[in-house]
This record gives sequence, C-alpha cells and structure tokens, in this order.
Amino acid sequence: MKRIGYLGPLGTFTHEAAVKHAGEECWELVDYPDIPELIHGVDRGEIEQAVVPMENSLEGTVNITVDMIIHEADVRICGELILPVAHCLLARHGVDISDLKVILSHPQALAQCRMFLRSTLGGGIKTLPATSTAAAARDVAAGLKEWGAIASKHAAGVYGLNIIRENIQGNYQNSTRFVVLSKEQREPTGCDKTSIVFSVDDKPGSLYHALKIFADSRINLTKIESRPMRTNLGEYLFVVDLEGHIRDGIVERALNRLAEQSKYFSVLGSYPRFMHR
Amino acid sequence: MKRIGYLGPLGTFTHEAAVKHAGEECWELVDYPDIPELIHGVDRGEIEQAVVPMENSLEGTVNITVDMIIHEADVRICGELILPVAHCLLARHGVDISDLKVILSHPQALAQCRMFLRSTLGGGIKTLPATSTAAAARDVAAGLKEWGAIASKHAAGVYGLNIIRENIQGNYQNSTRFVVLSKEQREPTGCDKTSIVFSVDDKPGSLYHALKIFADSRINLTKIESRPMRTNLGEYLFVVDLEGHIRDGIVERALNRLAEQSKYFSVLGSYPRFMHR
Repeated sequence: MKRIGYLGPLGTFTHEAAVKHAGEECWELVDYPDIPELIHGVDRGEIEQAVVPMENSLEGTVNITVDMIIHEADVRICGELILPVAHCLLARHGVDISDLKVILSHPQALAQCRMFLRSTLGGGIKTLPATSTAAAARDVAAGLKEWGAIASKHAAGVYGLNIIRENIQGNYQNSTRFVVLSKEQREPTGCDKTSIVFSVDDKPGSLYHALKIFADSRINLTKIESRPMRTNLGEYLFVVDLEGHIRDGIVERALNRLAEQSKYFSVLGSYPRFMHR
Repeated sequence: MKRIGYLGPLGTFTHEAAVKHAGEECWELVDYPDIPELIHGVDRGEIEQAVVPMENSLEGTVNITVDMIIHEADVRICGELILPVAHCLLARHGVDISDLKVILSHPQALAQCRMFLRSTLGGGIKTLPATSTAAAARDVAAGLKEWGAIASKHAAGVYGLNIIRENIQGNYQNSTRFVVLSKEQREPTGCDKTSIVFSVDDKPGSLYHALKIFADSRINLTKIESRPMRTNLGEYLFVVDLEGHIRDGIVERALNRLAEQSKYFSVLGSYPRFMHR
C-alpha cells in the first residue's frame, strides 16, 4: 500500500487535504509532527507523497515549506489542492451553546472568529490557545462539557463532535493552497502548472529581463515571490509559478533561455492545475 | 522629549537597533509587547517613531510588519538600519562554561547555535525555549548559576552578564534589516531608497510591464516581493524597494507612470539608504 504523509494530529486541514487527494485510492495516511519532518519523510522514502500547506489567502506563503523544498530536501511538486478554510463552533453532543464557558483553538482561528465570539458568546467567554484547530477538537472531545472548539467540519467528523455553528470566520475569504510532494515528476495532462526557482544579478533590470522571456512567450505567471538566498541580506531567489508543463515546447524553450542567463536555476515540478469540483 | 518605540524587553535586537538609531539624540525609548502594538503606537501618536524588524537574511521578510504597514496602519517608512545577528553564550559572572546545565534562548537562536551546543557543551546539555533572546538573558540574570543564555553582546551589557563565547552561530551570515516608522516623510539626502506597493492585473506580462518602467528609467530595484491582497488566493500586492527618493524627477516620473497603470498604488516612504559605519 502506498503511503501519504500529512501534518498531524488527525483532523487538521492538511489531513483533510490528504484525504481529498487520496480520493478513492487505497493509501495509508501517515501523520508527521511538523513540516520539516513531513518533507524529510518523502526525501528519505518513508512515504511516497506528502501533502503540505504552501500558501494561505490571508497569511501568504508558508515560508518553511518553500525554504525546505529549495534548500533542504530533494523532492518535487507533483500536485496541488485548494481548500476553503471554514471554521465551525464544535462541542460534545448534547451540549448547548449557552453551556460553553471556554473555547479552544489555534490563535489564528481564534483571531479570525473574534467577532463571532464577541457577538454570539459575549465578552466573558474564555479562549485557550491550542497547537492546531484539530488538537482543539481532540481536546474538547476528551474534555469537559463546557468546552467548545473552533475547528473544521472535517475535524467534527473525525472526533465525533456536534457542529453548533458553521462559517463563523466573519467576512474573510480564506482558503489554503496545498502542494503534493514526491520524488517523481508528473506526466503532462494538458492543463498543468510549473514551479521554478532562480536567481538574478543585482543590477538594474535583471528581474525585468528574466520576466521578459515569459512575456515574449505569452506564458502567464500565476505567482512570483522572493525568498532570501541565505547568503547576504539583499540577495534573493525568485520562486515563480507559471501555466504549462516543462515538456510543453514553449515552456521548455523559455525555461532553457532563463536557465542560461541565471546563476541559479531549478525546476521544483510540473503538475496538474487544481480544478474546483 | 521625543519618544521612539521598540519591541521589548530591554536588550532585544530591536532595542539595540533603536539605541543605535537614537545615537547622540536624547530620545525616550518605549517598549511594546508585539509588532502590531508597536506600529499602532506610531499611528496613534503615542510615539514619534518606531523601530521594527523588516527582513532577516535567513528567515526572509517579517510578514506581520509588511502587512501592518500595507493594510492596518497609516505610517511611513522614514529610515532603515541593518544589524548583524551575532549570538553569544552568556552566564552570570563567576560562572564557568563547565558549570552550565541548561541553556535558555529563542528557538530560532537555539537552532542556529545547535552545532556549537553539541560540540562545545556536549549532547547532554538541556535547552529551554524563551520568547526572545533578551528574555533569556533577563531570566538567566535572575536565575540559577547553572543557567546560560544565548543572546547578543548588547543583551549581556543590559543585564550585566558575562560573555563566555562570541559568534557561536556557526557559518550563518545572519543580519536583520529594521525600518523606522513615523507619520512624516523624510526629505531627500541624495542617497535614498523608496518603498512602494502596487497591484497588477492577472494577465500575461502585467508584472513585466510594471517592471519595464523601472528598467527603462535605469532605476535599480533592491527588493521585490509579493504579499496576499487578502481577497482571493492568487491575487497579490507587490512590494518593491528601489534606489532614489520620490522627489527625484526620474523616480517621480516612473512612479506616476506605474500608478496610472495599477489598480492599487501606494508609496510606503522615501528614506536615507543605510550605510555601514
């Protein structure tokens, strides 16, 4: 049986993404305590694939994921998934909203649901930080009757909790993009993306000349960002996501031109573009 | 007396940067518990200036600083400082390195000094996480004889600790760039930088066309990065640092052109470029 790794405990958003990614296939799901261990797990061959968070619409890129892929591990991006982040108020079955005295969750989720907590539960409600929304749900399932958790619908299912309210995160449009890592390159599907990383010289117009290659070829860039080279302040690597597969002639030619004029160049992977279903 | 804010407690790298920034001038230094409070402090007029960490050569941009300046606070960048991050092993006076049984520090500093800890203090040494290297130094000064801290030379001075070893962070080239925030725009000095933020359309070549303006004017970009717009995944704001002051004719004309073709455009500030002395 093939193994796919995720960030534990059971019921995290990464677990939900891994379950969705596995779909009908019979994968064994393996939990890891943090992102570096999860990515090293693929690199060492303990698991065939890993699902890791890459980017959130409110918080931005998960730097540890990008830096691990660039600097520390020999892995490739072979897929992506986008999941909406919708928070729910969860409690044990039979518990009424008026019974709740303490709400557990990850500090970011507590912050995102602050308005709901204040308006619905009143100013007197106590909040307790947890290491993840899933850990909060787990602790509420094993805890006291007056405890509630802010976590996902998925976590409610995993820990057998009752969903008291859904979508309590206010007006935030919140979603997270996950990438699937493996040791192998995916074949073209006709609707792919490619992630690359490269450096440019520190002189006027070098990034412009790099981007000119893509503009000339009408290749759309879906993301560009800089990460430190870990040498000196002010020296950056650029991480770019673009439309197309590295085996598409137009993409291949553009990347060859870019590689020629870059001191550092590497393909992180070509993979099917995520489609909302 | 003018007031300048920093991230507490006494002895943090931000405190050191604020002391250096104040120089000979008679400023009152005011500590804040976190970056959002510090930046709000300037915005509300409690302090005239704030020194905040912006970027580290290993960890990259401090996202909370950038996002606060873009989205939350009406403040301007009026200066920058770069400080080397050099870690020292500190203990109370009269304590020998062989007396040490527990080392306190921020987890990032502990990780950066892992090689030193293993090779010099042996595998059996215990490490304890602290909220900052300065808090570790403060706790060691008030703590037991067998406690050591990993913190800066500056923190040793602040808390009256003995420097047992300097530069224990291994091969890492580690430095942090701080920015100074205020409500006012700085006058040109002849050697300035300007930070701007703008959005581009999601179509092939839009970032390229924005950068073309700078390439055509031979304006050097010292940094470019993307941050989420906080609307949908895949919509970004670009934060660019460039050489020159907004009142330099060539910069002004380029920024006017960019503003015309951008849905969103804002100048974060023009300020003197940091010179190592």
